[in-house]
Amino acid sequence: MKLLILHGPNLNLLGLRQPDIYGIRRFEDYLPELKNAFPEVELEYFQSNHEGVLIDQLHQIGWEMQGILFNAGAYTHTSLALADAISAIPAPVLEIHISNVQAREPIRHHSMIASACVGSITGLGFDSYRLGIQYFIWNQGTR
Amino acid sequence: MKLLILHGPNLNLLGLRQPDIYGIRRFEDYLPELKNAFPEVELEYFQSNHEGVLIDQLHQIGWEMQGILFNAGAYTHTSLALADAISAIPAPVLEIHISNVQAREPIRHHSMIASACVGSITGLGFDSYRLGIQYFIWNQGTR
Amino acid sequence: MKLLILHGPNLNLLGLRQPDIYGIRRFEDYLPELKNAFPEVELEYFQSNHEGVLIDQLHQIGWEMQGILFNAGAYTHTSLALADAISAIPAPVLEIHISNVQAREPIRHHSMIASACVGSITGLGFDSYRLGIQYFIWNQGTR
Amino acid sequence: MKLLILHGPNLNLLGLRQPDIYGIRRFEDYLPELKNAFPEVELEYFQSNHEGVLIDQLHQIGWEMQGILFNAGAYTHTSLALADAISAIPAPVLEIHISNVQAREPIRHHSMIASACVGSITGLGFDSYRLGIQYFIWNQGTR
Amino acid sequence: MKLLILHGPNLNLLGLRQPDIYGIRRFEDYLPELKNAFPEVELEYFQSNHEGVLIDQLHQIGWEMQGILFNAGAYTHTSLALADAISAIPAPVLEIHISNVQAREPIRHHSMIASACVGSITGLGFDSYRLGIQYFIWNQGTR
Amino acid sequence: MKLLILHGPNLNLLGLRQPDIYGIRRFEDYLPELKNAFPEVELEYFQSNHEGVLIDQLHQIGWEMQGILFNAGAYTHTSLALADAISAIPAPVLEIHISNVQAREPIRHHSMIASACVGSITGLGFDSYRLGIQYFIWNQGTR
Amino acid sequence: MKLLILHGPNLNLLGLRQPDIYGIRRFEDYLPELKNAFPEVELEYFQSNHEGVLIDQLHQIGWEMQGILFNAGAYTHTSLALADAISAIPAPVLEIHISNVQAREPIRHHSMIASACVGSITGLGFDSYRLGIQYFIWNQGTR
Amino acid sequence: MKLLILHGPNLNLLGLRQPDIYGIRRFEDYLPELKNAFPEVELEYFQSNHEGVLIDQLHQIGWEMQGILFNAGAYTHTSLALADAISAIPAPVLEIHISNVQAREPIRHHSMIASACVGSITGLGFDSYRLGIQYFIWNQGTR
Amino acid sequence: MKLLILHGPNLNLLGLRQPDIYGIRRFEDYLPELKNAFPEVELEYFQSNHEGVLIDQLHQIGWEMQGILFNAGAYTHTSLALADAISAIPAPVLEIHISNVQAREPIRHHSMIASACVGSITGLGFDSYRLGIQYFIWNQGTR
Amino acid sequence: MKLLILHGPNLNLLGLRQPDIYGIRRFEDYLPELKNAFPEVELEYFQSNHEGVLIDQLHQIGWEMQGILFNAGAYTHTSLALADAISAIPAPVLEIHISNVQAREPIRHHSMIASACVGSITGLGFDSYRLGIQYFIWNQGTR
Amino acid sequence: MKLLILHGPNLNLLGLRQPDIYGIRRFEDYLPELKNAFPEVELEYFQSNHEGVLIDQLHQIGWEMQGILFNAGAYTHTSLALADAISAIPAPVLEIHISNVQAREPIRHHSMIASACVGSITGLGFDSYRLGIQYFIWNQGTR
Amino acid sequence: MKLLILHGPNLNLLGLRQPDIYGIRRFEDYLPELKNAFPEVELEYFQSNHEGVLIDQLHQIGWEMQGILFNAGAYTHTSLALADAISAIPAPVLEIHISNVQAREPIRHHSMIASACVGSITGLGFDSYRLGIQYFIWNQGTR
Repeated sequence: MKLLILHGPNLNLLGLRQPDIYGIRRFEDYLPELKNAFPEVELEYFQSNHEGVLIDQLHQIGWEMQGILFNAGAYTHTSLALADAISAIPAPVLEIHISNVQAREPIRHHSMIASACVGSITGLGFDSYRLGIQYFIWNQGTR
Repeated sequence: MKLLILHGPNLNLLGLRQPDIYGIRRFEDYLPELKNAFPEVELEYFQSNHEGVLIDQLHQIGWEMQGILFNAGAYTHTSLALADAISAIPAPVLEIHISNVQAREPIRHHSMIASACVGSITGLGFDSYRLGIQYFIWNQGTR
Repeated sequence: MKLLILHGPNLNLLGLRQPDIYGIRRFEDYLPELKNAFPEVELEYFQSNHEGVLIDQLHQIGWEMQGILFNAGAYTHTSLALADAISAIPAPVLEIHISNVQAREPIRHHSMIASACVGSITGLGFDSYRLGIQYFIWNQGTR
Repeated sequence: MKLLILHGPNLNLLGLRQPDIYGIRRFEDYLPELKNAFPEVELEYFQSNHEGVLIDQLHQIGWEMQGILFNAGAYTHTSLALADAISAIPAPVLEIHISNVQAREPIRHHSMIASACVGSITGLGFDSYRLGIQYFIWNQGTR
Repeated sequence: MKLLILHGPNLNLLGLRQPDIYGIRRFEDYLPELKNAFPEVELEYFQSNHEGVLIDQLHQIGWEMQGILFNAGAYTHTSLALADAISAIPAPVLEIHISNVQAREPIRHHSMIASACVGSITGLGFDSYRLGIQYFIWNQGTR
Repeated sequence: MKLLILHGPNLNLLGLRQPDIYGIRRFEDYLPELKNAFPEVELEYFQSNHEGVLIDQLHQIGWEMQGILFNAGAYTHTSLALADAISAIPAPVLEIHISNVQAREPIRHHSMIASACVGSITGLGFDSYRLGIQYFIWNQGTR
Repeated sequence: MKLLILHGPNLNLLGLRQPDIYGIRRFEDYLPELKNAFPEVELEYFQSNHEGVLIDQLHQIGWEMQGILFNAGAYTHTSLALADAISAIPAPVLEIHISNVQAREPIRHHSMIASACVGSITGLGFDSYRLGIQYFIWNQGTR
Repeated sequence: MKLLILHGPNLNLLGLRQPDIYGIRRFEDYLPELKNAFPEVELEYFQSNHEGVLIDQLHQIGWEMQGILFNAGAYTHTSLALADAISAIPAPVLEIHISNVQAREPIRHHSMIASACVGSITGLGFDSYRLGIQYFIWNQGTR
Repeated sequence: MKLLILHGPNLNLLGLRQPDIYGIRRFEDYLPELKNAFPEVELEYFQSNHEGVLIDQLHQIGWEMQGILFNAGAYTHTSLALADAISAIPAPVLEIHISNVQAREPIRHHSMIASACVGSITGLGFDSYRLGIQYFIWNQGTR
Repeated sequence: MKLLILHGPNLNLLGLRQPDIYGIRRFEDYLPELKNAFPEVELEYFQSNHEGVLIDQLHQIGWEMQGILFNAGAYTHTSLALADAISAIPAPVLEIHISNVQAREPIRHHSMIASACVGSITGLGFDSYRLGIQYFIWNQGTR
Repeated sequence: MKLLILHGPNLNLLGLRQPDIYGIRRFEDYLPELKNAFPEVELEYFQSNHEGVLIDQLHQIGWEMQGILFNAGAYTHTSLALADAISAIPAPVLEIHISNVQAREPIRHHSMIASACVGSITGLGFDSYRLGIQYFIWNQGTR
Repeated sequence: MKLLILHGPNLNLLGLRQPDIYGIRRFEDYLPELKNAFPEVELEYFQSNHEGVLIDQLHQIGWEMQGILFNAGAYTHTSLALADAISAIPAPVLEIHISNVQAREPIRHHSMIASACVGSITGLGFDSYRLGIQYFIWNQGTR
């Protein structure tokens, strides 16, 4: 099973950036642990701060992955183009957030990509990713 | 570990109600399967169509449970009193939705209880519950 | 033919409450007259000030009644949960109002339950009920 | 007793227009049936696609009719001038809709004429008219 | 000097309609008095309940009148087409209201035609017309 | 003189709940002190988390009490049905808040019940109740 | 007959200020002409840039003048206190504007004082004042 | 092939009206040129300032024309009744504007008829019509 | 104990102004009674119609008074500068209203100064002041 | 004559993406046909999913092309930077849409780039491009 | 060169008021330092809590100063009259704020005077003034 | 001291683009002059039309620069991702605008990045940069 974790803007700075909101651990340190936890999954990881590069990436792997865990960062709230890209590809996309975005500023309460995704896991720290992978494993072959 | 699944209005009709949105399986049939999957958890279940009864229940078990999985149904979008009840108790509450509420009518895009919860799992069918229990197990003792 | 008249909050005070808006006659005094006018109908009546009890009631008789005349009072304008309950059951529900709600304060201009109902009769005093029953009789067996 | 059924824009195309919303029966075919059902009523019928003609008509028969059943079509939602015309005349006007306008696009959820009418019957197909006539008969002489 | 008093919908019923707002005098009775007061003015009068007829009229006399006193009634608040017609013609148009529209319902607080007019006289009863004629006399030849 | 203190949702947890907002004292401990301060008043106390039970209670004692001090908690901001219940009964109702609701989240800035009450005392801690009782004593017999 | 022309902020600069909007004539030069035109009127004039001074002035002459022509300048759109002052006094107040405020920026489209005034004359340059005085003369003794 | 150019309010004044926006050429002068350019098309032309007449016209030729080029003028932004008329007929309707309406006042940014049309051509002067006819020719027989 | 009653615009006209809202008693007549009721309080009184004078006054006595009862009249709803002045001084300020502002026009439903005050007493006539003084006495020395 | 077709995000997937909205033909297959139809035009084509690359492209060819047909995809509704880029260059830009965006979700009803473009052609499938080229040919040399 | 620093409401309390926002230094202590830094400038200083006095001051020195540094405090967000005063005078006005108003409450995000000023310097503490003076020196003689 | 001037979309066209708004001087011509004025500063310059490249750049130099002068162009008003990037880095960022954005279209009145910056300098042409550098020099070592 092939899954992609796709990260949007500023998520390359996890562990360095606003640690009261995002914690002090770098995602690069967490990734190996995540791979160990799911040896049956071929887990890829891609991050970009560029809306266009994220769209390109969705197009490129959208016919190949069995699932995508997408934390679009701030683009969650401003990018209709990413929503269109998600609707354009067959791979199911799961919206992921580390922090509880609904408990932050009003502009973060609305997701422009949510209606194009299968669902979302929000506010559970790095566990949001782990649970998302678990979801794709349980549903392997059902789509 | 003691966890509660708390169900709000109309969720007693799962399996009977709008099957195109909620599926055709009754929650009562799913619950034993869920209990089997997590033998280490003492899993309780409570449903009410009454906002007040749900508040009473949160008050009553809020000092006793290690976690609450709360699908508040339509009250998610209209009840400030439930949000206050969640804020009032020490047990962590996880917001759960079977359907992808952000892809439905606008009134379902905003959650009044989200900011009082630790996070949310939305749109993943009955798996939303299973992932939520998994989350509480992984985080047992960390709060 | 079995029909239910379902009354929401404060409608137990008809005749006592704001007579300039709702008139001075008690609904209990009108009900026998209504039953006499339609001897072929088994007409039940239920009132509650509790949103949850109204939902319970809809669930309980939703597979049994041929039609429901629902004056939800103030819940008309605030309860998404009642709208969901109406959508969940097979019985057709007709929205009823004694006063012309669209001619009152702005908050009463929008009905949250209207889109789940078959239609509405508004502002015609107690005749709103009588016409509603007539409607169900004319359409008996067509749904 | 003299009553008028007044029809606004596009209602001359009933039976031809969007049959999934308005049904396949022409109003001209229904009218004789309606007249037969109420032999005691002198029932007139008038349709126009012109806002101004509808106002003229209200002015002309507003002192002569005992009641008016007014389906203003799309003008329901945009015409303050029709609301003023209704307020200007002594005849009671009942707002009528064939479809459940509150379950359609948001612009159809608000009626500009409602506050000038005695009440409304909405969503009950051609029965909306029949019930409305019944209402005027029951209340003959009470205004 | 040629001036036109142009009246929109329902203003043919002045004196008959909502006398608490518009008074009990018919405009037809007031017009001769107005003509007597300004013998130097060739004063024409035109009323229609039809938005289209009002536009036609503005087009027809727009190159011929030295001024137009326009009480557009309810169309004041809903007709962009009338605003366009006023902008299209060279004759200066003065917006007139008998009642103080800003002290009535919110929908009457905004005028769609105001920005196309030279100014407005509001709330001064039939004197609004008399003052408007006075204005055009004082400014004769200055445009 | 008979007065009722009526408490809405979550107010049973005063002293336990969010002490930075509501303080650390339980209302049950304060009540005897309040009764001592006003020996001439027959002071009753009722709390419920159920909107419907609060409505029932208002109906039941609305013809019997000389005044009601109503802290409706979160229902203050969402319940039109409670506002209707207050309007339906003859007893004067005083809106009470312990915290300064206007200094909290925007949803707490608007009260749905305020216009049905005689007035409000807000933000003065438990003194809000004591002052409210004082008000009813001063005005005894004047209504 | 005693009338007051009351001028709000920045109107002392008429003739100097934004001449494309307000013209190049100073009001002080126009005032004698106005007095000459109405020898039967005792015409007073008062200007202040201070909201409070304008309120004081309304209070002071509100029981003495037969009419007030009030151009409140920018306070028209922001001062509820001036609206209250107008409502508090018996003298009728006429709202006056030199420019067509409805054709300028959106914030100038709404008048906070309009509903407290008897009416308004807008956009007719200095003639707005002359017409206003004429109005009060015509209606002398009718209030 | 039969096509209709349908013109709404004030478009009879093209060439005379606001030439900075609409140009100085009369549509009557352009029409023969247009007919010459497409000899294979039977091109009809109809203009009215009356909303109702435009609806009548759509009804009358809606089953006969292969296409309609509709410049609804100001009614574009205010007429739901015209949108309903377009939805009611089988002929495809193309929305046409001479000026770039999205670059003008905000009220002209939203089209009420757009969702009922097949598409729109905006801002290209009289070429908007010529391109529209071209479109219908290219698509002849495909609907 | 030194307390100030601070009055904003138009409150100098109490007893003369809109008696249906504010009553017929002048505040000057009530003040001695209030002083008699609280002989232990050095009670000062200050009124101004000037926003700036009210700010000056708050600055001047803000380090000297033990409490301020502030009825800001219409400035309650429009003055951010008064809110800033209240935040700038150490004396606790209590918002006072004679009428039930939440039951009046929408613009009076929101207080701009509320979040800077300790709380508010609203709608209780002159008793609002008396209760406010009582509050400060009970809390003397606790701040 | 040199023209550019500029394509924004996700338009590289035409034919693959949501065929019910965009059809099943790839744009690459249509392009040669388009070039054949207009042999006199040097037609260039450029697509990017990157907002920044689209801006760069506009800057680079903005002084060189006689016209640009710009289908900005989802950026139409969110990119002020693209609107600024269009305003910055001398080449006329025509807004193009394949689908009828005004008949889709509300966020697609407003174009942020429209006011910077000369006009728009919307909803006519691939013919939108063909008509746009025709427009530029007809107007060659007129700008 | 003559420059004025103009201070609006509550800025007389700098150093005493909300030191976490505005710092602990009094402006009176900073002013000599500022004068020393720019010996070539004749620097005047004026503060008032009165909107009207600020307008008077702008009128009085508006033809005399080469530049005005205006920190309007809370009036920035509520005073259209001050914006009009700035537009009325020839002296260039620079908007100044000590704190970063855009990072505070929403009501402070919008400036009513900004569009009448040449520009603004915000959030840089007392340096905002020093930079503003520097700006006027660099641009001396260019206006 | 190391400072960066960071330029967003379309700012590479300064001098070429809309000269009535941005002037006719190219920034490249101004930069040497700026460097000469501050020989003690190591001044870097970077421009990109790509939101993602700007974020990358902020990440890359965010731990190295003592200050950043950021004119984000149109992204100022649409990019939450840039705001997040500014919050993520330790270097202080100063928002810069050449034109007075608050005096332009409404969409330019709100800055999404302002709350993440230390302050802003707006509308002062190229002097905005020079003053910003001055600010960083004055505050060197204080952060």
